[in-house]
Amino acid sequence: MLKAVLHIDEPIKWQLTLANTENLIADVGLENVTLEIIANAAAVKIFGSTESEAASVIEKMKALSNHNVKIIACRNALRANAISEDTLPSYITVVPAGITRIIKKQSEGYSYVKP
Amino acid sequence: MLKAVLHIDEPIKWQLTLANTENLIADVGLENVTLEIIANAAAVKIFGSTESEAASVIEKMKALSNHNVKIIACRNALRANAISEDTLPSYITVVPAGITRIIKKQSEGYSYVKP
Amino acid sequence: MLKAVLHIDEPIKWQLTLANTENLIADVGLENVTLEIIANAAAVKIFGSTESEAASVIEKMKALSNHNVKIIACRNALRANAISEDTLPSYITVVPAGITRIIKKQSEGYSYVKP
Repeated sequence: MLKAVLHIDEPIKWQLTLANTENLIADVGLENVTLEIIANAAAVKIFGSTESEAASVIEKMKALSNHNVKIIACRNALRANAISEDTLPSYITVVPAGITRIIKKQSEGYSYVKP
Repeated sequence: MLKAVLHIDEPIKWQLTLANTENLIADVGLENVTLEIIANAAAVKIFGSTESEAASVIEKMKALSNHNVKIIACRNALRANAISEDTLPSYITVVPAGITRIIKKQSEGYSYVKP
Repeated sequence: MLKAVLHIDEPIKWQLTLANTENLIADVGLENVTLEIIANAAAVKIFGSTESEAASVIEKMKALSNHNVKIIACRNALRANAISEDTLPSYITVVPAGITRIIKKQSEGYSYVKP
């Protein structure tokens, strides 16, 4: 089982982060990966965006979340960007601080990737 | 105890790196973290800057160093940017190569984060 | 022995990635490091470039590969950038998905650095 955290903190990196995730799954098979995509800082802006590109990214996230990829957003970042948690899709998990989650997961044996 | 290295190699990432550090400490408490912020490449330019923004960043660094966050600068990077070690604040630790420290710390169980 | 993966996914980061590698080797000695530079996404464009800067970067890569630094390119990225594997220098190793390699190596005890 490959376990990894993918860290994203810039909105511009969503396509790349999701492409990495899809490539990994295509390469080793869904049943062989445990993944968390952890978004903090400006990356959470995607959840407040009304642009069509954001919609397509969020559609992809939803598909991945149905395949056991956990999508995690940082509460500090949501607040800093005035995004209400109530408006988030149901498959997003909110944590108090993304940075804590990133560090903890590595201490539990997850690899770290920053696309 | 959460142990982590925060790696910074771009001057523009100081605010984000320090905000991550502050969020982590606010989330889990000072007594539960062991942190090193390791600056190499162009990130060390902050120590030679006379801009007011740099002063405020360095003020924050100082406060964090009083809270057991180690701030580390790469000697190769200092030389490449013509910054004399004598001019550095006393709470900065200089190492021969930042890259070595980043790798070693992970082999000692530290997590890695690149904000 | 220090073991590490250096991850590069932007063409603009080649100089920095190779400088990090050279600094590490200069600091601890060739015999004390086991390194993989793993290139995915747009970083592989260097292998299709005809610019003179690319040539000097590739020259450096070759020298490092003679010193036991493995240089690895992601097949997904090569295809996405229409770069034929036949045109790659012989010291480049191609893997099906760079992301898989990055994660696996960490699970085998390699540190991760994203310059």
